[in-house]
Amino acid sequence: MADAIDQDRTVADLGEFGLIGRINEVVTATAPGTDVLVGPGDDAAVLRVRKGHVVVSTDVMVEGRHFRRDWAEAVDVGHRAAAQNLSDINAMGGRAQWLTVGLAAPADLPAQWALDFTRGFAEECATVGAGLVGGDISRADQVMISVTVLGACIVSPVLRTGAVPGDVLALCGRQGWAAGGLAVLGRGFRSPRVLVEAYRRPEPPYDAGPGAAEAGATAMIDVSDGLLAEARHLAEGSGVTIDVETAAFDVPEPLVAVGQALGADPMQFILGGGEDHSLLATFPGGVALPEGWVRIGTVGARGELPVTVDGGAYEGPTGWTHF
Amino acid sequence: MADAIDQDRTVADLGEFGLIGRINEVVTATAPGTDVLVGPGDDAAVLRVRKGHVVVSTDVMVEGRHFRRDWAEAVDVGHRAAAQNLSDINAMGGRAQWLTVGLAAPADLPAQWALDFTRGFAEECATVGAGLVGGDISRADQVMISVTVLGACIVSPVLRTGAVPGDVLALCGRQGWAAGGLAVLGRGFRSPRVLVEAYRRPEPPYDAGPGAAEAGATAMIDVSDGLLAEARHLAEGSGVTIDVETAAFDVPEPLVAVGQALGADPMQFILGGGEDHSLLATFPGGVALPEGWVRIGTVGARGELPVTVDGGAYEGPTGWTHF
Repeated sequence: MADAIDQDRTVADLGEFGLIGRINEVVTATAPGTDVLVGPGDDAAVLRVRKGHVVVSTDVMVEGRHFRRDWAEAVDVGHRAAAQNLSDINAMGGRAQWLTVGLAAPADLPAQWALDFTRGFAEECATVGAGLVGGDISRADQVMISVTVLGACIVSPVLRTGAVPGDVLALCGRQGWAAGGLAVLGRGFRSPRVLVEAYRRPEPPYDAGPGAAEAGATAMIDVSDGLLAEARHLAEGSGVTIDVETAAFDVPEPLVAVGQALGADPMQFILGGGEDHSLLATFPGGVALPEGWVRIGTVGARGELPVTVDGGAYEGPTGWTHF
Repeated sequence: MADAIDQDRTVADLGEFGLIGRINEVVTATAPGTDVLVGPGDDAAVLRVRKGHVVVSTDVMVEGRHFRRDWAEAVDVGHRAAAQNLSDINAMGGRAQWLTVGLAAPADLPAQWALDFTRGFAEECATVGAGLVGGDISRADQVMISVTVLGACIVSPVLRTGAVPGDVLALCGRQGWAAGGLAVLGRGFRSPRVLVEAYRRPEPPYDAGPGAAEAGATAMIDVSDGLLAEARHLAEGSGVTIDVETAAFDVPEPLVAVGQALGADPMQFILGGGEDHSLLATFPGGVALPEGWVRIGTVGARGELPVTVDGGAYEGPTGWTHF
């Protein structure tokens, strides 16, 4: 394998330029990207833009906050870091094309970790035809990963601000699975494996964003911090009230099992969980939802609360904040 | 002032969304950028691209490695973080247009620090007409800043790979000043003030990159890690040898003074120093150098050493590496 190196070597052993060279080898072998006029290795990358615009987003992941090296393999952290950023372009109704990574790491980080991370990252990018085109590395006390993704929309971007009363609220993709997996890991368990895997490697519905845009979605967001928290962003951005109907959800069996094992209502994972990077969108009332989308609520005129559940206030946790 | 807040409040006191809201206020008041179709606040920004391409680069700065909060005010760290990234676009012969910032910080970071940083960052961007269009914040043990900059080239990008024997090597901008300032700060001094200021707020020659591209520069790089280290990148990228002539430099008086005070050869600051973000480029032998550029050496056929100084090997430090 191109990226297998001595397990004892650290990033400090390889040195800055040695590490960058190995990372570039992994990227070139996995997902070099298309329309790359100048790739990694110069002061900047140069990318051909065919649509007259770029869509750009930046996300930060910090060791101990967003991932733990003992809870996920480096290759999984790579998949997740890419997925969370690719999902931001998806949520605009766009397709991701290029990514850059700023990586800060302790000197004693195994070099293999950095290469496995890169491989997972590049593999996830390759699933949508995107490529890693640049980045920077530095020493730090803990691993920090800052990813910037660039892409383009097929039709007009779908913002958070366009929902109007009478729209329906719809969801696409798994929801609550990653939160269930995280809860399991937090208690020291490793099963149900399907949930732990969902946390380690989310599977965002990458085709659903452009599809929703073409179908006329009025507002859209990806669920990274929690379903109700994201619904609130849509409601406040659009100046409406959103009601989520719990009866619309089929609670999947693994979440039922985890709820029983941990003594928790499995709906909490669905309503408060993030990191599956499902998509939440509003569509005009008369529109047939595209394949994969499920109606989960309604949009009404602005009221006392931005978000209600089954018509009333919700008392449980609605999502995650970073400070 | 829009960004003055209670000095005792921390980023944790403001909370993630409170802090983002205040940061957006500072950005909007300072440097919102142009051709921004969708600005901060959605899943991604949308930017109008007029040249059919984008130039993109990412740089990481870590507290304790790239800056110390007791050595520079937050506003200066902001200027420097922006300058180092704007300079990467300059080094391609391009002009920067948009930036995103990934910021990780301890919960007890004063919120005012984050806002002052943002103000300095946005002010530096405004000097070239660029704007901050997005980003992300997270909690971490130390301050980490990852910046991505996007821009466009006026003519073809100038790479590191185009130097040929017979070219002349030229420099534009202050060189060695920031290294002198850093040496002073490292010894616990605060003067010569002009050098300390040069370290705190580099002044890259932002017009010189596009000017060099139009004048036919064959290769170019910005000096962020050290003059000889960057010369080596050019030489290795182009498959040539570069000779730097020390007689070409006028050693500025403040560097002479620091050299005497610290018992160091001031040429060491010039040859090994980075972070002024001067530009180093090669031009065909017959070309009249654009204003501000100074001839400092020659390009020859590939030899035993990629870089020589006055025709021979150089024994001093040539630059900085991160691991």
